[in-house]
Parts: sequence; structure tokens; C-alpha cells
Amino acid sequence: MAKTISNLGEFGLIDFIKKHNTKALKYHNVYLDIGDDCFCFNSYNNSKYVVTTDILIENVHFKKEWSTPEQIGKKSIEVNVSDIASMGNAKPLYAFVSLGIPKDTSINFIKKLFSSIKNTCIKYGIHLSGGDTVGAKDITISITLIGICYDKPISRDTAKYGDLIFVTGTFGDSLAGFEILSAGKKILKSFEKNLIKKHLEPQAKLEIANLISKNIKITSMTDCSDGLFKSIELLTKNKGANIDLKSIPLSRSLIKYKNNNINNLYHYALFGGEEFELVFTINKKDKDRLEKLVSCVKCIGTITKNKVIFLENGKEKKFQYKGYKHF
Amino acid sequence: MAKTISNLGEFGLIDFIKKHNTKALKYHNVYLDIGDDCFCFNSYNNSKYVVTTDILIENVHFKKEWSTPEQIGKKSIEVNVSDIASMGNAKPLYAFVSLGIPKDTSINFIKKLFSSIKNTCIKYGIHLSGGDTVGAKDITISITLIGICYDKPISRDTAKYGDLIFVTGTFGDSLAGFEILSAGKKILKSFEKNLIKKHLEPQAKLEIANLISKNIKITSMTDCSDGLFKSIELLTKNKGANIDLKSIPLSRSLIKYKNNNINNLYHYALFGGEEFELVFTINKKDKDRLEKLVSCVKCIGTITKNKVIFLENGKEKKFQYKGYKHF
Repeated sequence: MAKTISNLGEFGLIDFIKKHNTKALKYHNVYLDIGDDCFCFNSYNNSKYVVTTDILIENVHFKKEWSTPEQIGKKSIEVNVSDIASMGNAKPLYAFVSLGIPKDTSINFIKKLFSSIKNTCIKYGIHLSGGDTVGAKDITISITLIGICYDKPISRDTAKYGDLIFVTGTFGDSLAGFEILSAGKKILKSFEKNLIKKHLEPQAKLEIANLISKNIKITSMTDCSDGLFKSIELLTKNKGANIDLKSIPLSRSLIKYKNNNINNLYHYALFGGEEFELVFTINKKDKDRLEKLVSCVKCIGTITKNKVIFLENGKEKKFQYKGYKHF
Repeated sequence: MAKTISNLGEFGLIDFIKKHNTKALKYHNVYLDIGDDCFCFNSYNNSKYVVTTDILIENVHFKKEWSTPEQIGKKSIEVNVSDIASMGNAKPLYAFVSLGIPKDTSINFIKKLFSSIKNTCIKYGIHLSGGDTVGAKDITISITLIGICYDKPISRDTAKYGDLIFVTGTFGDSLAGFEILSAGKKILKSFEKNLIKKHLEPQAKLEIANLISKNIKITSMTDCSDGLFKSIELLTKNKGANIDLKSIPLSRSLIKYKNNNINNLYHYALFGGEEFELVFTINKKDKDRLEKLVSCVKCIGTITKNKVIFLENGKEKKFQYKGYKHF
């Protein structure tokens, strides 16, 4: 049997592309190459343009039965803004929206989808700068977002030993929301509604990212789109970390959903994905200043030299990566 | 029955977006808004960044049975380079490639597709700057290409009365190639192979576009992706044109394919689409200089005040728009 793409995955593609770029790099004013949250190239003064791209496909990333067109449109912009946010002191500027639309889609649905994309763009001051609409079997939304970074863009892998790892928000809710939707329950409790909302209506942390990066030296940052486990892996490339499991923020709704079953909660928090929270590192000395500046951040661990270790009351707990994989 | 998107089409979307942008425009350094071949924003010095985006979907834009992965990859870059080319004196810089890939796609196919995208990028000196790969039911290729324009980007609708309309290449071949592929003939004659090649392996006219725009004042330009009829419509917004049908360049292969049936040939040339030739206007006084500079251009008509008129031996011939429509 021929090998299929199931064996490859996104990170294989990025390595493939990086090899191609080695020669081209010096001629193109590239500041930060493919493989980070955004690609960055030099602009005028000390600013950099940051660019991110994302594709959402019906029945892969969303279902029409689960989401309103408003939710789909909003999410498609938020996930891209989230990538721009994680570069620090950034402003999203231009969005390019390509839509694949099945012939039988109602104009009403499309109008609501467009309006939601438009309104989310207005919220962030984004200019809709391009579009292409084509026929397709499934609704396909491909977005490229160009932003500007007023300082040095913050990479994923530039943390130093001893730096503290911080997060915004809570983890695991989106996966729980996805599960509740999959179960197809008719009558929902309020905590279930909260979890579903977290899955269908994610919110980029642009304001917080800008606030902290303007005031504190952030040594590395990413947004948590593929799960906290994956984010920690990205921040600790060629390094390690001690993660205090009990420090990972969990929502009351998730705790209720899992009847306080702690092992299950860790699983959700680490492998959930689609949280769009910030995961970042700072020098120890900046801890107090950061915590005074924003109340919604939590320290979950420290960067170390070797490997990533998860600790529960000081004891190691092992996990195997089983997060988001597209193929 | 609910109204469906079949009634709307791409140009409805662009109007919808333009309304949104009115307020945002002044804050964003926008030089040329959505609705032209590329979106343009100011860069350092007098340069402008130009951005275009395109989405290709299996069984809508290409078929795996008809095209090799190499042809699909090449075409996906060429169609975007073609948009950049039509802005004049431009260089494509950064490509962002999002791929939707069905689970059962062979690694061999994907490797060939990627290699072809990569090699076409190398040909044009393009840096592969971003990528996202996701699962999908049909192969989906969404590309955003950022380039730089060293002069004032050339719009579609800035021609003046009396300007001459020029084209590069021949018209109608791609549609004929598509028809031959659809017929599924096993044994092909050499003119049929030529026409198929025109459909599957289009070539952006970047070099010619740069050569003419650096040396001659081009008053308006577009690339012919949706058919010559549509291109003429775009160049004559609020204006008109006299088009000499017999001047439209036709290939020997197309003439052979249609047994020299002239009415049929006009239909192919005007409504074919996917030609990726340049359609542009110049001031009359530059005609000689242009024709000395490049041999592959042909004058097909003149910009007038009123409506577009097609002439055959001086007599008007009427056509109704029946070109490429996605929905």
C-alpha cells in the first residue's frame, strides 16, 4: 500500500519548506522565517510585517449543524489574530479571505458569514484587502492576515534557562465543548453551554499580548492552538521545563464536566487544543511586575536545561503526546 | 426555495467588502484597494507591496485524472504570479501556501505537488513564507502571494479615451484544452496536445509585464484569467472600446481544432478564460516604441467613450457575456 499523508503531518511540510528557503533568505529581508506563529519581514523604520495564514474546512474544523455562520466567521478571523497577537506589540492590518462555497449554500448563510468576518475585522481595525470566492464541495475559508509589529517580534524558541512559563486563561474547555457537541445532547446545563461557547467562540488575546509585551520583556511566546502540551514543546525546543500540573488554570465548568476527576482534567488541559490562550516566558525578576500589570496570567513552570517534566505535588507524571493532528 | 449563492458571484462579494473598507482606508496606508488584480499598500521609499490570493479546489479547478501533481503545483503559483505581473514592474517575494489534503492522498503525490510549488517559486525567486496543512475531502490549494512594485502599480480602470488596447499571446486555447480533456479521448493529435498543455501549464507573463512597464507608459493592465471579454469589461469601466475581432490572436492549434469556423473561434477567444495573458492599454504615440520593444504583443482595439463594440470587417457583431462564473 502506498504511504499516505497520514504519516507526515504539518511539521514535516514546514521542514520541507525551510530547506527551500535557505538560499532565498538573504535576498528577501526576512526577519523570522516560516515555522513560528507568523512569518516576519522588515518594514520601514524598525517595524516588521508579520503574516499568518490559516484554512478552515467544513466537517474538518467546523460543522454547520453546530455553529452559526456568525460563529464560523468570527472564529476564522480570531484564530489568525491570535497568531499575530503572539508576536507581541502587534496590530493586524490587512485580511485576505478566500472562500470555497457549495452551490446550494443559501445567500442568507453567506451574508451572515461575511457580516461576521466583517464585524470581527472592524473590532480589530482590520482592512479587508482581498478575496476570492470559488465553488467547492465543502465550505472552505482560507485567511491570510498581515499585521505590523512595532518591536522585535517574539519567537517561540528564545526562552532562557530559568525563565518562568506563564499562561493566560484556562485550558481544556474547548475539547470538552467539542465532546459535548459531538454527543448531540438536546438539553444542556449551564456549564455545558459555557464549554461549547469556548469551542465555538474563541477570542484572540491581542490586548493582553500587547499590554504585556509593551511593558515586560517577554523572552518567548506562542498562542495555544494545538494544545498546551504542544505549546510547551514549542517553547522548550532544545531545552526543558518543569511544569507544575496543579498550576494549570482550569475552569469551573470543566471541573464540573469531569466530576473533578483530576487525571482526566490534566488530559483535557494538556491535549485539548483550540484554546488560543497565550503561553509565554519571562525572566524571574519580572514576575512581580507582570502579576501587578495583569491579573489574568498564571505561572505554570520554569524553563530547564534538559527535558520537559510534569510534576504533581513534586512527583513526576508522564504523558505521551496525543494532541491535535490534522491527518 | 431559499436564494443560493449561485445568484451572487465573486463581484458581489467584492462590493460587499468595499463598503466595509471605506472607513478603514485612511488609517492603513492603502494604495490600491480590493477589486483590482492585487491589493497594494505603501512600503518604504516609493515602493508598494502588492498582494494577491487564489484558491484552487480539486474537481472544481483541476482533476487528479487530468493533471500531474507537478502541473497542479506549478499552476497554483503561476496564476498568482500572473496577478502580480499585471501590476507592472513588480517582483513576487513571499508565498503563503495552505493545503487541504484528503487522508488517502499518497505521500508520493504530495511530495511531487510540493516540489513543483517549490520549483516554480525558485524560478521566480519567491520565498516560501508560510503554510498550513489540514485534512480535507478534496485537495484544496490556497495561495497568498506578496510582491513589491517598484513603480506606481498599474490599475485595471485607468485607461484614457483613444488609448490602444494590446494583448500578449493567443486566446481560447485553454478552453479548447479543457474540452479535449473532458471528452476523454485516448489518442491525441499534436494540436490537441498543444491545447491541453495551454490549459494545464499556464505561464505568467512576468518578464514581459516588467519589460513593457519599465519602458513604456502602460495606462491600464490586467491579466486575462476570466476570459478576454471580461478583461475588456474591466479595462473599460465607465468607458467603451472598439474591438477588431480579426485582430485577436488565435493559435494554429485552435484554428485546426475548430476547423476554421470563425464564429466558434470568436466564442473561444472571448469567453475561454484561464489564459493568463496580459491585456493592457497605452497612449497611441507609444505604439511604435512598444512594437519595437516586444514582438509578442498585438493591438486589438481602441478605448472609446461609450460602450464596448466588437467589429468584424467594420460591422458590429454582438456577444453576450457567458464566461467563467464560479457559482
